[in-house]
Amino acid sequence: MPNSPAMPLAVQVHPADNVAVIVNEGGLPSGAVLPSGVVLTENIPEAHKVALTDIPAGSPVVRYGVTIGTALRHLPRGCWVHEELLATPTAPALDHLPIATAVPAPLPPLEGYTFLGYRNDDGTVGTRNILGITTTVQCVAATVEFAVRRIKAELLPRYANVDDVVAITHNYGCGIAIGAPGAEIPIRTLRNLALNPNLGGAPLVVSLGCEKLQPGQLLPVSTLPILNREPHIVRLQDEQHHSFGDMVAAIMQMAERRLIELNQRQRVVCPASDLVVGLQCGGSDAFSGVTANPAVGYAADLLVRAGATVLFSEVTEVRDAIDLLTARAATPEVAAALIREMAWYDEYLGRGEVDRSANPSPGNKRGGLANIVEKAMGSIAKAGTTAITGVYGPGERVATRGLIFAATPASDFICGTLQLAAAMNMHVFTTGRGTPYGLAMAPVIKVASRTSLANRWSDLIDVNAGTIASGEETIPQVGERIFQLILDVASGRKETWADHWGLHNEFALFNPSPVT
Amino acid sequence: MPNSPAMPLAVQVHPADNVAVIVNEGGLPSGAVLPSGVVLTENIPEAHKVALTDIPAGSPVVRYGVTIGTALRHLPRGCWVHEELLATPTAPALDHLPIATAVPAPLPPLEGYTFLGYRNDDGTVGTRNILGITTTVQCVAATVEFAVRRIKAELLPRYANVDDVVAITHNYGCGIAIGAPGAEIPIRTLRNLALNPNLGGAPLVVSLGCEKLQPGQLLPVSTLPILNREPHIVRLQDEQHHSFGDMVAAIMQMAERRLIELNQRQRVVCPASDLVVGLQCGGSDAFSGVTANPAVGYAADLLVRAGATVLFSEVTEVRDAIDLLTARAATPEVAAALIREMAWYDEYLGRGEVDRSANPSPGNKRGGLANIVEKAMGSIAKAGTTAITGVYGPGERVATRGLIFAATPASDFICGTLQLAAAMNMHVFTTGRGTPYGLAMAPVIKVASRTSLANRWSDLIDVNAGTIASGEETIPQVGERIFQLILDVASGRKETWADHWGLHNEFALFNPSPVT
Repeated sequence: MPNSPAMPLAVQVHPADNVAVIVNEGGLPSGAVLPSGVVLTENIPEAHKVALTDIPAGSPVVRYGVTIGTALRHLPRGCWVHEELLATPTAPALDHLPIATAVPAPLPPLEGYTFLGYRNDDGTVGTRNILGITTTVQCVAATVEFAVRRIKAELLPRYANVDDVVAITHNYGCGIAIGAPGAEIPIRTLRNLALNPNLGGAPLVVSLGCEKLQPGQLLPVSTLPILNREPHIVRLQDEQHHSFGDMVAAIMQMAERRLIELNQRQRVVCPASDLVVGLQCGGSDAFSGVTANPAVGYAADLLVRAGATVLFSEVTEVRDAIDLLTARAATPEVAAALIREMAWYDEYLGRGEVDRSANPSPGNKRGGLANIVEKAMGSIAKAGTTAITGVYGPGERVATRGLIFAATPASDFICGTLQLAAAMNMHVFTTGRGTPYGLAMAPVIKVASRTSLANRWSDLIDVNAGTIASGEETIPQVGERIFQLILDVASGRKETWADHWGLHNEFALFNPSPVT
Repeated sequence: MPNSPAMPLAVQVHPADNVAVIVNEGGLPSGAVLPSGVVLTENIPEAHKVALTDIPAGSPVVRYGVTIGTALRHLPRGCWVHEELLATPTAPALDHLPIATAVPAPLPPLEGYTFLGYRNDDGTVGTRNILGITTTVQCVAATVEFAVRRIKAELLPRYANVDDVVAITHNYGCGIAIGAPGAEIPIRTLRNLALNPNLGGAPLVVSLGCEKLQPGQLLPVSTLPILNREPHIVRLQDEQHHSFGDMVAAIMQMAERRLIELNQRQRVVCPASDLVVGLQCGGSDAFSGVTANPAVGYAADLLVRAGATVLFSEVTEVRDAIDLLTARAATPEVAAALIREMAWYDEYLGRGEVDRSANPSPGNKRGGLANIVEKAMGSIAKAGTTAITGVYGPGERVATRGLIFAATPASDFICGTLQLAAAMNMHVFTTGRGTPYGLAMAPVIKVASRTSLANRWSDLIDVNAGTIASGEETIPQVGERIFQLILDVASGRKETWADHWGLHNEFALFNPSPVT
């Protein structure tokens, strides 16, 4: 288990950086010599930063190619650059941001990459062939779950080409002010979950009858161009149901009609441009921004070059580096949309008397993250280096290609649910501390930031990016592996550990409005 | 199926009422003669109100013994009293309420009523013998559910005296500001769910490791007097777990130790005063306030007379009749606590730019509810007629007897979850439109407001209160039946339909703070 390189080693993420991160377990002593020739002038803990050059007082300290702070005194080459030596930048105000001032040039297109997917009538492609059952309200959840247990036991085995049955249950739909500001977020999330490519269109809906969120509002006629027909609906309060048994029978009958259709579908060769890959990190450590996230970022660039859609998210993790994102926006309109999403979230947090002062946490700082800019940069590393070509609000269905900011909270399961609503058909999740994350509606590839975690959780982690820290692999090498694994898992050729164990977390809606 | 009385019939809820509600299906025609001799002067729809006396312009219209509005013109005996003929009272301001001015005299105590329960070390009594597994964060939910499936399949059959295994999973614990105003609500809810009497103390906790809500905050040392020992904790990120299999094995090992203990417990005779009965309504119709809710109110009075704890809740359903509740408070302190909870909720809704203007809904009005006072009175009818002896905030553990206002939203599943946290060991749920509601942690008795629903959903509804509308039974008769059924179900002698089918809705936390 190569948990730690034998030789002193530090990772420099960007050529312009004047600091690098010590990757040796337990840190390095004063006098240690890095491969670049830099000699440590003091002991530096693991995951903390070393100065690669003399940094004069008042000069920028650069990591990820950006200024993460200003030196408070002269920092000699080889010294420990920790939080107390840096003036923390203030959070960027939203009214003086650079707008599309540093748009990356397009990378050369990648041709010829394909996967085997299920092509849908609306032009999207599924990586799975799932029977989805949408619910309008929590009141029907236990009944639908009862029916789904029976469908899985009695019907699904007869339809071998169908992967799974997923009930989209949630705690919304009634006991809420349906016209409240922000109510459109959970409503469109539920709508767009029903339209996820992996469910193949033609939603089945179970409604109670008297709930506030009616089927016609959940799936209005405006969604018919995406659907290939009107949704099938079972209303439990309808007079024709004369018992609980009747209700369950009606759900099962509706399900079996759909299973017959789904079972006839076949995977076909699709270009990689039909992938919609959602990126997320959770349980991050200081290595996430050095190994797993940059490797995923490399894969993201490959996907964008192949014409795919790549979603990055987590407003609270990017807010403090928003100036870098608005500069990188492909157009002024995209930059304006980024600012709109940040402003909405600032207001939302402010209404709840919450700010980002607890970010980074004491644990983050112990782990080597000096401040919120450095933390945000680690998170943004997942998004690679291409221009940001689109911005969507929470729960909106993404319909454009390239690198997209799909605004979501950072909360892992809310983010995952919103990315599914955004039409995600593949998910990549990086973790440092380790979390046994999984989703029912799309495969989740879990990438570990350290070899020690990948080894200890060998039956949960799909990709080890810790080899980057130990020098065994480069960021492009791990990025290429992730890209290839995405194509293999999307095609059904390889199975993720989450799917192997059936680790599928519940949907978690983002409802910014009060309950009533 | 006696869905409708053969003779013209109207229900007068309180002797002081000058209106009654038509209960004949399809309504009654002009000229119909009620048993009281009142002759209808026009057609009146089902569930709508008829004037029992001449009501002069400007005089109060009285239902439930309270003024629900003022006559806008002279209302002759026998006429249809609908919303357009009433001046709607304004919502009571919170600074000029009557304080303990109409405290009901204590009803005669009821002696000798008992049930068979599981007595806990902390003095509470369980009506079920359930193995509960608490979780700190959603990250562990899928792993715990995987383990619970195996526990139910492999271990539970060997411990026949244990009723069930319940994982307390939720979408809180990380991705939230743990110090935000209001964060104490979901945190104490999770804490007090772990301490619910039906779990018998000694919580088992599954934690990830890096989450914001740590086990020590979830179950601090201050809870040790309630626990009979320190909680058992499995942390998935702990170094000793070398695989997913290790994590599952650790959870199963912890569970089996607890199953052995739980299996040795025996039901013993307990006074009815050990019951903590939560009351709720959902999917209400105009008959809810005429049949099911008053019958449950009668049962509530019996329970209070027997020394039990009765919880009523749903702030948004009582807010517009708060003056009646503060008058009925046993002490000025109880009245002040009622006002505190109303003010908190007013502020919470206002922050989200939501008010109660959508209440009652158009459907409520079509169903005969003239205004918010009338709707609130129907809801409050569940709480019977005794003095209000205590008030608790959302998620607080109730430790006093008598009629308690446990503040919760009206949302069915959030209310049920919060009542479980309040130490509820029995639940009574009234419904008019019908909802297949159930909880895993306490038995739910479902009471239908109409015979037609009770017949149509005969394998979901436990008690038919529709016989009150048809004149087959009185409110006290149905109330006595409900009281007796509570004792039978609490004792394990009778099974509810929800438990028969295993209809157990997920927990739904009340988190008034933003996610991050």
